Amino acid sequence: MRVIDIIRAKRDGRALTRAEIAWFIRGATEGTIPDYQSAALLMAIVLRGMTVDETAWLTSAMVESGARVDLSALPGVKVDKHSTGGVGDKASLVIAPLAAACGAIVPMMSGRGLGHTGGTLDKLEAIPGFRTALSLDEFQHMLAEIGCSLIGQTAEIAPADKKLYALRDVTGTVESVHLISASIMSKKIAEGIGALVLDVKAGSGAFMKTTAEARALAESLVRLGSAAGIRTEAFITAMEQPLGRAIGNALEVIESVETLKGRGPADLEELSVCLAARMVCLAGVASDEHAAVASVRAALASGAALEKLREIVRWQGGDPDVIDDYSRLPAAPHRHALGAARRGFVTRLDAELLGRASMTLGAGRDRADAAIDPAVGIVLHVTIGDRVEAGAAMLELHYADEARLSKALRLVDQALVIGDAPLPAERLVRGEVA
Amino acid sequence: MRVIDIIRAKRDGRALTRAEIAWFIRGATEGTIPDYQSAALLMAIVLRGMTVDETAWLTSAMVESGARVDLSALPGVKVDKHSTGGVGDKASLVIAPLAAACGAIVPMMSGRGLGHTGGTLDKLEAIPGFRTALSLDEFQHMLAEIGCSLIGQTAEIAPADKKLYALRDVTGTVESVHLISASIMSKKIAEGIGALVLDVKAGSGAFMKTTAEARALAESLVRLGSAAGIRTEAFITAMEQPLGRAIGNALEVIESVETLKGRGPADLEELSVCLAARMVCLAGVASDEHAAVASVRAALASGAALEKLREIVRWQGGDPDVIDDYSRLPAAPHRHALGAARRGFVTRLDAELLGRASMTLGAGRDRADAAIDPAVGIVLHVTIGDRVEAGAAMLELHYADEARLSKALRLVDQALVIGDAPLPAERLVRGEVA
Repeated sequence: MRVIDIIRAKRDGRALTRAEIAWFIRGATEGTIPDYQSAALLMAIVLRGMTVDETAWLTSAMVESGARVDLSALPGVKVDKHSTGGVGDKASLVIAPLAAACGAIVPMMSGRGLGHTGGTLDKLEAIPGFRTALSLDEFQHMLAEIGCSLIGQTAEIAPADKKLYALRDVTGTVESVHLISASIMSKKIAEGIGALVLDVKAGSGAFMKTTAEARALAESLVRLGSAAGIRTEAFITAMEQPLGRAIGNALEVIESVETLKGRGPADLEELSVCLAARMVCLAGVASDEHAAVASVRAALASGAALEKLREIVRWQGGDPDVIDDYSRLPAAPHRHALGAARRGFVTRLDAELLGRASMTLGAGRDRADAAIDPAVGIVLHVTIGDRVEAGAAMLELHYADEARLSKALRLVDQALVIGDAPLPAERLVRGEVA
Repeated sequence: MRVIDIIRAKRDGRALTRAEIAWFIRGATEGTIPDYQSAALLMAIVLRGMTVDETAWLTSAMVESGARVDLSALPGVKVDKHSTGGVGDKASLVIAPLAAACGAIVPMMSGRGLGHTGGTLDKLEAIPGFRTALSLDEFQHMLAEIGCSLIGQTAEIAPADKKLYALRDVTGTVESVHLISASIMSKKIAEGIGALVLDVKAGSGAFMKTTAEARALAESLVRLGSAAGIRTEAFITAMEQPLGRAIGNALEVIESVETLKGRGPADLEELSVCLAARMVCLAGVASDEHAAVASVRAALASGAALEKLREIVRWQGGDPDVIDDYSRLPAAPHRHALGAARRGFVTRLDAELLGRASMTLGAGRDRADAAIDPAVGIVLHVTIGDRVEAGAAMLELHYADEARLSKALRLVDQALVIGDAPLPAERLVRGEVA
């Protein structure tokens, strides 16, 4: 087999065989195929696409490039949730303890933020002492003990994806529903789960800007999960404005804890209950959707989910007292409040621009190896549809550096629009794929 | 400027700016842009195309990556001929001395063979002692003295093209009319000529399989040449069967010399006279096409062109006596004659397959760094349309190695077709672009 023939075949729009894809993934991972040849093939895939079969073969080849965690010693169906990424999306911090408190086993491997979107690992690490780099042994031990573990992708999991993603990131080849699907699902299949709930974001702050694009990705993901024997269901949810009110790592930890205390913003609570209930259903610990929602609501109301989060934080080396005392979390030295420029209705709180503003403050990174500041971020006081008076508090920027603040304010200015009439309310959940 | 933005722009089908192209070519040549990013951009260019402006900017950026030879000290318009490559295409060896014998100054920089197509440098180097790696100083000196020099591309000429071509060769990104045009024309513009005649081949043995594809390439090349102030005209010529009767380096030298002695095959003589006459016209040493053809025919009939070739060979260190004594050229130890399988008319002598057969014997290379055998090759005894009796001699393979012979014979078998009726004669020159 020659890589040049594989590149030419894809360039000319032909489908690759299972053997060709497996051979390429092996060579790219082991380094026998140079990056320039992989990059050419990846660009050809972005522009020519892949069939359903090719995407499935690519996914299995990436799974097979590493270890597949064996969680069969633990009872029942192990269930994870994955979000395709948004702004202010701290739902994993709420959902994982919620589902675990209901009796589901939740082995959750998450990622870091890149660009305007945040990452669960960065949020967790805002908690002093919290370790996300657990070994697979610790991961399995923790799942057996408390039913949940929130860690990063280990080196054993889909190394081919790790290698290819780094290359895609610098060669303009991230944007392919096929490559994105294979990347997400290879890691999920390798982590040893039996069920998966996907939150595919659609809108300004999401990777997929339209519901139709998000649906195509959701269908591809569900197809790949099902083909690998994982009960996979997807929700398509709105990401026009940030989820909840907080953007920035420590700020999002606080909002997640508040939500587990029953005092969170409505959208975050609604989404968390919806996704956690579906996880509980798929894990088989509730008999039907109705019972699952009841069980999740009870875990929220009783404080059981909050206690589960405390257990997780303690187990992973974090300071569990942050849950009662937010002053133990890093805080930014300065705040800057922004008032409404005029009277009217909030018609836009652009998620991407607010995400970029938060990144500019230091909460996110534009390169995979950049450092972040866990304390900085943005807290919104309004949501789309709210009526505001001129000068009323719209949002507050938590910052450390004046130069970054002024850059962030330019983005925030573009993100906020006040109109004369309220927009019709948008639904948070736009669709489902099962 | 960031290369990732340039890659994304082209991936999404946007035209690049002159500044972006110049910046990319500088970075790719100096090595500040890694090959994997260049490869991704090249694949995006292959699949998304380039505008006329982009192709012109790419061409000038590649010219500016190196030196531009200054031949202004020599009188008159300097004229070159370039062929896009075919099988048995030894026309440069005939045309350069023909045009020079008529008074044109011919600074010809040629390439090596790759794949099934041959290269002028390989043919010249079949002459014992012949040096093609002259310095630019020697090149200019020789032009001043005898009006012609046949050399390889020097390191000073379009280094960006050298670098990018090596990458394109291994990343499936050769096949783009825009990239091919810029590659050819950057070298021609840098060599310091004022006029250029292009022979764009169309057919089985050519890079462009159809006349329409060849015409698109010819138009692109003529446009780029004219934009750079070079009088550029192109012929589109047939490459379904090999040009002339000989394929293989020493064998093609013999056929070229025979043609200059007035004993060459009709197609090679016709093409050589046609292209040389156009060169003589564009160089301004003949008043019109009619006078140019007469001048070229006279240089052929008088032996002046043959003497010009002898001068070139002597000047470049080759053994000039090969012209009178072909036994001084390398010869293969064995010959294998192939007879017609049946009576009928030759309807196919597939140029690509015969080129691959010759390469298999050792006359060509499948990798840029492979060694070749100057002695081996194929001599055809027939041409398309010829009537043959069963068993009549069709062709002869000159070989050194039995294993290579049997592989080559399998290709030759596919290349030859004898039918019941003659095909209508095809014209050698299919069109012109000026």
